[in-house]
Amino acid sequence: MSQQIRVTFPDGSQRSFPAGITPLEIAAAISPSLAKKVLVARIDDTVRDAFTPLHHDVTLRLLTWDDPEGKAAFWHSSAHLLAEALEALYPGIKFGYGPPIEQGFYYDVDLGSRRLTEADLEVIEKKMAELAAQNNNYVRIDISKSEALKYFEQKGDPYKVETILELNDGEISFYRQGNFVDLCRGPHIPSTGYIKAIKLTNIAGAYWKGDAKNKQLTRIYGISFPKQKDLDDFLHMQELARQRDHRKLGKELGIFIFDDDVGPGLPLWLPNGGVLIEQLEKLAKKTEEEAGYVRVRTPHIAKESMYLTSGHLPYYQDSMFPPMELEGIRYYLKAMNCPHHHKIYAAEPRSYRDLPLRIAEYGTVYRYEQSGELFGLMRVRCMNMNDAHIYCTEDQFAEEFRAVNEMYLRYFKIFGIEKYVMRFSTHDPAKRGQKYLDLPELWQKTEDMVRRVLIESKIPFVEVPDEAAFYGPKVDVQIWSVIGREFTLATNQVDFGQPLRFGLTYIDRNNQPQTPIVIHRAPLGTHERFIGFLIEHYAGSFPLWLAPVQVAVLPVADRHLEYAQKVLHQLKQKRLRVQLLGSDEKIGKRIRTAEIAKIPYMFIVGDREAADGTVSVRQHGKGDLGSMATDAIIDQLVKQRAEVLGD
Amino acid sequence: MSQQIRVTFPDGSQRSFPAGITPLEIAAAISPSLAKKVLVARIDDTVRDAFTPLHHDVTLRLLTWDDPEGKAAFWHSSAHLLAEALEALYPGIKFGYGPPIEQGFYYDVDLGSRRLTEADLEVIEKKMAELAAQNNNYVRIDISKSEALKYFEQKGDPYKVETILELNDGEISFYRQGNFVDLCRGPHIPSTGYIKAIKLTNIAGAYWKGDAKNKQLTRIYGISFPKQKDLDDFLHMQELARQRDHRKLGKELGIFIFDDDVGPGLPLWLPNGGVLIEQLEKLAKKTEEEAGYVRVRTPHIAKESMYLTSGHLPYYQDSMFPPMELEGIRYYLKAMNCPHHHKIYAAEPRSYRDLPLRIAEYGTVYRYEQSGELFGLMRVRCMNMNDAHIYCTEDQFAEEFRAVNEMYLRYFKIFGIEKYVMRFSTHDPAKRGQKYLDLPELWQKTEDMVRRVLIESKIPFVEVPDEAAFYGPKVDVQIWSVIGREFTLATNQVDFGQPLRFGLTYIDRNNQPQTPIVIHRAPLGTHERFIGFLIEHYAGSFPLWLAPVQVAVLPVADRHLEYAQKVLHQLKQKRLRVQLLGSDEKIGKRIRTAEIAKIPYMFIVGDREAADGTVSVRQHGKGDLGSMATDAIIDQLVKQRAEVLGD
Repeated sequence: MSQQIRVTFPDGSQRSFPAGITPLEIAAAISPSLAKKVLVARIDDTVRDAFTPLHHDVTLRLLTWDDPEGKAAFWHSSAHLLAEALEALYPGIKFGYGPPIEQGFYYDVDLGSRRLTEADLEVIEKKMAELAAQNNNYVRIDISKSEALKYFEQKGDPYKVETILELNDGEISFYRQGNFVDLCRGPHIPSTGYIKAIKLTNIAGAYWKGDAKNKQLTRIYGISFPKQKDLDDFLHMQELARQRDHRKLGKELGIFIFDDDVGPGLPLWLPNGGVLIEQLEKLAKKTEEEAGYVRVRTPHIAKESMYLTSGHLPYYQDSMFPPMELEGIRYYLKAMNCPHHHKIYAAEPRSYRDLPLRIAEYGTVYRYEQSGELFGLMRVRCMNMNDAHIYCTEDQFAEEFRAVNEMYLRYFKIFGIEKYVMRFSTHDPAKRGQKYLDLPELWQKTEDMVRRVLIESKIPFVEVPDEAAFYGPKVDVQIWSVIGREFTLATNQVDFGQPLRFGLTYIDRNNQPQTPIVIHRAPLGTHERFIGFLIEHYAGSFPLWLAPVQVAVLPVADRHLEYAQKVLHQLKQKRLRVQLLGSDEKIGKRIRTAEIAKIPYMFIVGDREAADGTVSVRQHGKGDLGSMATDAIIDQLVKQRAEVLGD
Repeated sequence: MSQQIRVTFPDGSQRSFPAGITPLEIAAAISPSLAKKVLVARIDDTVRDAFTPLHHDVTLRLLTWDDPEGKAAFWHSSAHLLAEALEALYPGIKFGYGPPIEQGFYYDVDLGSRRLTEADLEVIEKKMAELAAQNNNYVRIDISKSEALKYFEQKGDPYKVETILELNDGEISFYRQGNFVDLCRGPHIPSTGYIKAIKLTNIAGAYWKGDAKNKQLTRIYGISFPKQKDLDDFLHMQELARQRDHRKLGKELGIFIFDDDVGPGLPLWLPNGGVLIEQLEKLAKKTEEEAGYVRVRTPHIAKESMYLTSGHLPYYQDSMFPPMELEGIRYYLKAMNCPHHHKIYAAEPRSYRDLPLRIAEYGTVYRYEQSGELFGLMRVRCMNMNDAHIYCTEDQFAEEFRAVNEMYLRYFKIFGIEKYVMRFSTHDPAKRGQKYLDLPELWQKTEDMVRRVLIESKIPFVEVPDEAAFYGPKVDVQIWSVIGREFTLATNQVDFGQPLRFGLTYIDRNNQPQTPIVIHRAPLGTHERFIGFLIEHYAGSFPLWLAPVQVAVLPVADRHLEYAQKVLHQLKQKRLRVQLLGSDEKIGKRIRTAEIAKIPYMFIVGDREAADGTVSVRQHGKGDLGSMATDAIIDQLVKQRAEVLGD
């Protein structure tokens, strides 16, 4: 009888199998339909091939397309498939790196003097599909450094040789599928047949190892899926996202621009963007006022000494702008508002009666991101943050944290955000004193409270161990736009470290000094990222209360201009944001202009309307609503607007 | 018959006098009462002694206490009188500099090891009054460098010797009154008898020549007046100003603080200051929205290239923070918002139909002021500016400028600013092409229009030649607080230079590109300076709409807490800013707390109020208003608040 090993599954259950069994075979033993889905497996702490023979007791998690690690392996294997196709089509080309990325994969190749076109990509796709249909297994080959070098020297692949030279003997492996062999750590999916749908998406230049001093290679991007329908859905989403691209719409709708003389990552908000900001701030200020926050204003700079106290220097220095030296003192642009708020907390002696103290500010912070990392409003260097810091006692903490979560839910409802998840990062007790502050009781207390609040609030969340901040647990908030794209909105952090560093205290009931807990929160994130999200989410068709221009008034002909002005005046009296489209252009063209500007309502006025005191109403996305009494439709709009801001 | 000279007076009239006559004698010839008031005279372009003999034709302006030059000479002569008194009291002391300052004068003296006390100041004042009563003439003595050196070497006054060594022979003069001789360029008043009232205000240390490497001298500050009543008024005003000092009240009322770790001149606005800012911004945004402004938001930094285009670099560099260098590019903190706004103007093609375009922003700008120049909120390094730039055609200019002035008047009314004056600075046509842009037509047109608007608007103004900006005429707005202190609020500038530098254009009716005129305006100045002014103006007792806390609710005893909470809730429902003063302290003490906090209204609730549904109302500064139905007084407050913000 063969030797047995014991396999422990994620739910804690255990089963015995003969030694040498692979995760794939274990899956088949559990359920044949599961086996078809398994791509790779987490064996103890490492993600490995699903066809790895198991010789000892292990913990095992079978990973499919639904796991990030499954997707990564799928795309990594697809990169190898791309390379195989390229070698078949263009023999003698050289290969650089070919990793999976967030969405798909790429391979950097040296094509010599050849330049690829869109048409070439289709040929390559076809070849990949053909090779995939052969359903060749991915085979792992562990190999010595000298053998590995010999292989690629003979093949004439200098990039692989260079890579191998940097590796340690005994840690080198090849993977082979069909006739193609690549240097690779793995893991890979079982065979090429899993790859049912392939799209090569882009061609770009990329320096070998990202260094501009090296040769420029050709980077071919692609994405692949286990089902054709997944690819179709992906392409459809891409098209929707393209139509809703916040950079494109941001420009077309006059929301923001970038300017070369101002600098990269520094958006200038145009008047329509200014309205969006004002409205969001009104909402936030109203919401926070009702929730008992007070508002402060702090400068955008501070002395070096403050950031040494906070510990941001030198730890966070690379993400901050460089200092300005004045009268022998270094000043930094603030990259966060907390130290300034701590100073305001510390400005007066505080008693337990003053807590919770909730200090809010729309603070603008500046962070350094490399030029290459900047992306529209999503990655910027200047951020207007819906920031606040709540200083509270341990007793108050759970209630305050619950209230913060409720504020999120309230905002999600207002903005029609139906899919969201909170990523709750906890600490690793083994790493206290190094990666985490050594305050075991506070860690346990706050993590327990956060967990309980999330459960009681019925908020969907995932708990991620060992990803807390140095000074406390945190919750990252992920939201999905209406077309299903994911955005990281904001982070709530529990902080019992900074209050200690800044020596913040309050006097408790027994007249003893105590350190408050701080909650960092920013439910609307930054204007930059949130408005970027909203542009996509609404496809630029903002709801009435947010819309930069709420009503366009269009006189049919010049003789209706006087009545149009009267309507305009009525609208302005109710503080509706209006625009008169009464130029020389034909009415049809002006209607089209208002449509493109995505103005929620058009009031068209001609002879009949002027005679009756009515307007002909067109609603964006709905079309003609017919004739309505001017007063009545205005009342209706005022009511509609009030649903969010209450005025 | 003696030789005659021709004297031209400011009104253009001319008169002949015998050569050798002094301005004082001319004044006597015009009117004996005028002669008594003349302190110095502007002879051609120079301010000189009123006892200077005139030998040639001149233009002459007689200067009195009402002229800044008259005050300066009066205080300069008072400094000499102080020195005379000091020498009489403490023979052998050495003298540094003794100039007039904005309010009074000082003298830096080397007293050896002696230290002065308050009591000493009274003795010195008495001696000064005694010497003033002698009514000694101030006598000018032109002297050679060698003679001058000899005099002070013999006297043993090393500071004077050092000063003389830096002067050119032929340009040196002494002034003598009584037994005291000083090195001095003058001019001085005719005699010590003019000085009727003297107050020595302060003693401080001051390094010789302001250099910390030099010896520290004793600086004695003083002020003097031609009438005792002027001094009494001055001291009364000082006391009022002391009570209303914005630095003192700003701290007591929780409005702002400075923090060593943030930096000098960088105020942090506490929650009560946050309310003031929010309310002022609400007012400004409402006012500007009604006046057709649009709002933008721009970053606080920009590349060096933008400030080279604007011309702020290198010209204005000393007033800017030093640059931050990032990826090889220098970024500057913005010291003004205009270049950012110009970029927004330039972001789209503009037609005459789009103008006037009024771009507003509460932009925070950063300017470098030396540490020693910083003063509370009045001189800071960080300024939240009520900024806007109006881009218009020449035809629109007068109307736009008029509207800006009207906005000022509207604000003056809201804030009870009854005394104000606009200082209208024009260019000097002779200096076009050097000090001023060489655009004669635009200068004439805009200056004429500004002048006409000021006259038509019946706004008090003074016209100051040759003080315009490089790129256009400007209007500085001076206001007086209710206790009569003067503040510079803001500057309106006409600008036809920057639009050219930034290449701003619009297409006119004939489809030709034209350059717009820009009006820079900031009627509420900066939050820093305006709130500093308002604190003094209102002595911290802000009107209801501005008050950080509008109503304090005070339950007489614990058993009234429930009713107090109900009242509080009613107030909050109407969005009134409230505070419950319901601690263990006695009611009298809590009333005092609310008084000190200058909360406009107190609602005191006891048995009777709880039974009747009333509150006992106390108004700050007025006292007990008696019992009122809660609903009724709340309605009244809501009405009162609405007078300014309309909600």
